[in-house]
Amino acid sequence: MDDEPLNIVLFSGTEDRLQAAAVMASGAAALGRKVNIFLQYWALDAFRKDRISASLGLAPEAGERGATLVREAAAAGQQPWHATLRVAKELGEIDIQACSLSMDVLKIEEQDLDALVDGVEGVTAFYLNAGDGHILFI
Amino acid sequence: MDDEPLNIVLFSGTEDRLQAAAVMASGAAALGRKVNIFLQYWALDAFRKDRISASLGLAPEAGERGATLVREAAAAGQQPWHATLRVAKELGEIDIQACSLSMDVLKIEEQDLDALVDGVEGVTAFYLNAGDGHILFI
Amino acid sequence: MDDEPLNIVLFSGTEDRLQAAAVMASGAAALGRKVNIFLQYWALDAFRKDRISASLGLAPEAGERGATLVREAAAAGQQPWHATLRVAKELGEIDIQACSLSMDVLKIEEQDLDALVDGVEGVTAFYLNAGDGHILFI
Repeated sequence: MDDEPLNIVLFSGTEDRLQAAAVMASGAAALGRKVNIFLQYWALDAFRKDRISASLGLAPEAGERGATLVREAAAAGQQPWHATLRVAKELGEIDIQACSLSMDVLKIEEQDLDALVDGVEGVTAFYLNAGDGHILFI
Repeated sequence: MDDEPLNIVLFSGTEDRLQAAAVMASGAAALGRKVNIFLQYWALDAFRKDRISASLGLAPEAGERGATLVREAAAAGQQPWHATLRVAKELGEIDIQACSLSMDVLKIEEQDLDALVDGVEGVTAFYLNAGDGHILFI
Repeated sequence: MDDEPLNIVLFSGTEDRLQAAAVMASGAAALGRKVNIFLQYWALDAFRKDRISASLGLAPEAGERGATLVREAAAAGQQPWHATLRVAKELGEIDIQACSLSMDVLKIEEQDLDALVDGVEGVTAFYLNAGDGHILFI
């Protein structure tokens, strides 16, 4: 399966889950694997040009203590999720596609999206590109 | 892996994640793949006859803006998740099983469940049916 | 794929999702499959010695009704997630690794972690151990 891509259906729009996705993607890219990311709902919303640097909050279980730790890690130099992804995309082969259905629901046009996003596709195209590789839903 | 089923462990009980699962399932079914869905916790709860048409809320990160967009998409004709699933089930081969352990925790009996649910099984049966196909946890 | 491990990236720190992960892990172990669990963020936090028996809350969609049902199931004898995992680990081959990046973010040292955790590794080591087996992100 080393020749197969890693595929991520990225649904969540909190900073911690976006960071987890960026880490899983960049780890796979570092191993020379192709990575396909398919953006749905709140993850797609997070890739809007005017939102990508916004503060997006954390999973509810982070609590006050977790939020403080994440803020301190950022202050100590941890890259935000979109920077992790941008670096990984320069070094490896990472293709990021917006889900066409989610584009409709959230009334997003292609020009609204950050340059990290490579295009728009439907779910069947995602499956065909995914091949036999793993699919993570994050 | 085209001959292998797509398998979804469906845990979440918010409308957006249930819709994402329905879209992933119906896309795979449209490609002629068998789909196995295994219902746990709040997703299982959402398939109760007296809950399936209820308003179930969204992931917390949707916020007020996201909730408004989803409401507007529904008003503009977007099908609810259970309708997406019902149509997909008529056109393709989608088997929906309730997790027996979650049935116990939530005190749900088989007759409480909507007709979309085909039966009740344990986690080992789920794995045996999953074969070599992808498993998504949603 | 029966000879391949089941791999779980465990991110969530709510009791219901931790229990779901423990059930998926113990089902796979019961079938004789090796299980690799990779702990990130709030799941990692939940494996701290001083947190593992704490009350961690549920997914937001549980609501008051869901929380009552889960409490009643616990009172009726349902094991907590860490006990499910401990039993499964005695009977099968389950390897639990902490994500080194998440250790840094949450300022956790190896000695802070419960004995269920076997070690600390990076994401590339996780991928290499995962082989061709399924990967679930929970």
